[in-house]
Amino acid sequence: MSDNPIGIFDSGIGGLTVANAISSLLPNEKIIYFGDTAHLPYGDKSAKAIRDYSKEIIKFLLSHHCKLIVIACNSASASVGNAYLKWVPKDMPVVNVIDPIVEYLSREKYTRIGLIGTKRTIHSRIFPKNLNKITSSKIIQSLATPLLAPMIEEGFYNNNISKAVINSYLSNSRLIGIQSLVLACTHYPLIENQIRELLGQKIEIVNSAYVVARKVETVLKLSSSERHERRSPEHQFFVSDFTSGFEQAANRFFGKKVKLQEHNLWKR
Amino acid sequence: MSDNPIGIFDSGIGGLTVANAISSLLPNEKIIYFGDTAHLPYGDKSAKAIRDYSKEIIKFLLSHHCKLIVIACNSASASVGNAYLKWVPKDMPVVNVIDPIVEYLSREKYTRIGLIGTKRTIHSRIFPKNLNKITSSKIIQSLATPLLAPMIEEGFYNNNISKAVINSYLSNSRLIGIQSLVLACTHYPLIENQIRELLGQKIEIVNSAYVVARKVETVLKLSSSERHERRSPEHQFFVSDFTSGFEQAANRFFGKKVKLQEHNLWKR
Repeated sequence: MSDNPIGIFDSGIGGLTVANAISSLLPNEKIIYFGDTAHLPYGDKSAKAIRDYSKEIIKFLLSHHCKLIVIACNSASASVGNAYLKWVPKDMPVVNVIDPIVEYLSREKYTRIGLIGTKRTIHSRIFPKNLNKITSSKIIQSLATPLLAPMIEEGFYNNNISKAVINSYLSNSRLIGIQSLVLACTHYPLIENQIRELLGQKIEIVNSAYVVARKVETVLKLSSSERHERRSPEHQFFVSDFTSGFEQAANRFFGKKVKLQEHNLWKR
Repeated sequence: MSDNPIGIFDSGIGGLTVANAISSLLPNEKIIYFGDTAHLPYGDKSAKAIRDYSKEIIKFLLSHHCKLIVIACNSASASVGNAYLKWVPKDMPVVNVIDPIVEYLSREKYTRIGLIGTKRTIHSRIFPKNLNKITSSKIIQSLATPLLAPMIEEGFYNNNISKAVINSYLSNSRLIGIQSLVLACTHYPLIENQIRELLGQKIEIVNSAYVVARKVETVLKLSSSERHERRSPEHQFFVSDFTSGFEQAANRFFGKKVKLQEHNLWKR
């Protein structure tokens, strides 16, 4: 069991930053990644459609004997709550990209927390709502930064264009006085260095991909299901709609060479 | 009949640049605009869904006694061909945002034509395909510029950020040697000035909104259905899903103050 892979999915390839963080933190673990590029972007789809897609993907990952599932997509994490996962085997841990961040923020010492993400994530107010259930002593100052994800997808990062766009967003008055900044979108780890440069050292940057990776580590340790096999694991990457553009972008998001395989979710 | 309004629709508010061009060229004409913001963006929807939405919208515009319909959206123009408009009254002219441009390019003196637009528009190859049916002596060199539309929607234009992004795209080797550049997206008129600054005076810029407006003028003249009423027309603007953000953006796209009304397409 412990040698089985970790299953990770997203609407596209953004979740590869989470896969990358898990692979860096837990280099022994094997990963199976599924990017639902046929239905990209989930941000425009209804919660019901997202649940249907997620169910098919989780079934696919379970059929590959995954020992843990990571929902590496904000829209899917918001739509697929525990109530919709009752059909998943009871002992199968499912980690999303919202709960571990909220948990982390509740423990953190900072009280004024900045948070950036897509329009949908920010307008859903899911982070402040869930944090408020745990503590009332912290304030989340959130800002939608919708140009950042398409900018990164287009390959604009670590250059002057991305610097100007990031600077323009970070100068927003909504972020005045924050002590930490949560990057609440799976795309943003690719611009973390530029954000750090602009914010300086005094503001802590919460890279949600790494917080999620730590959560995965904890869950595996608690259930003693870490992989012990010493041989380097061979990860597998699936998408529901293949284009060479996705493969190139996948290399950027995963930080190393990735070979995408196409798998149609609806073919039996 | 001639005093009746012109009906214009788009998946969102981008088509307001076309409405603006028509209003500038034909200041006597009254406009009824419909932005299907509930189904935005059409780029991700199937052709069948786009046809269904367009049918409902055209029915709505006809019920407001429009004398001419403008499909001010590239995705809808590509999906809703004449074959799907057989139910529209025979004498009702329908103008889209592809055919007038292709017609214009076939008459133009230039042989090497650059064309920029969204990924979907460029990958569909609808412009070179349709132009090729008329003439084989012209080459279209097209480039997808997917960051431009979200950039403009976010309010980044006429500033240094937009200048840097536009410059980065226009430096692409695909556009080397072009004699004219077609702006094949309803958002791009807002950055026409910056594009002109970067391209210089030697390359003609084809603003598709104005080409479409000219086509509307011609069609109205041919059928002698121009509006003669001297009183300034009061345009009307409908969206299927209202947010104040849309209203602010609508002002930018139309170039003057706009009051959006919400109309649910599926309510009878």
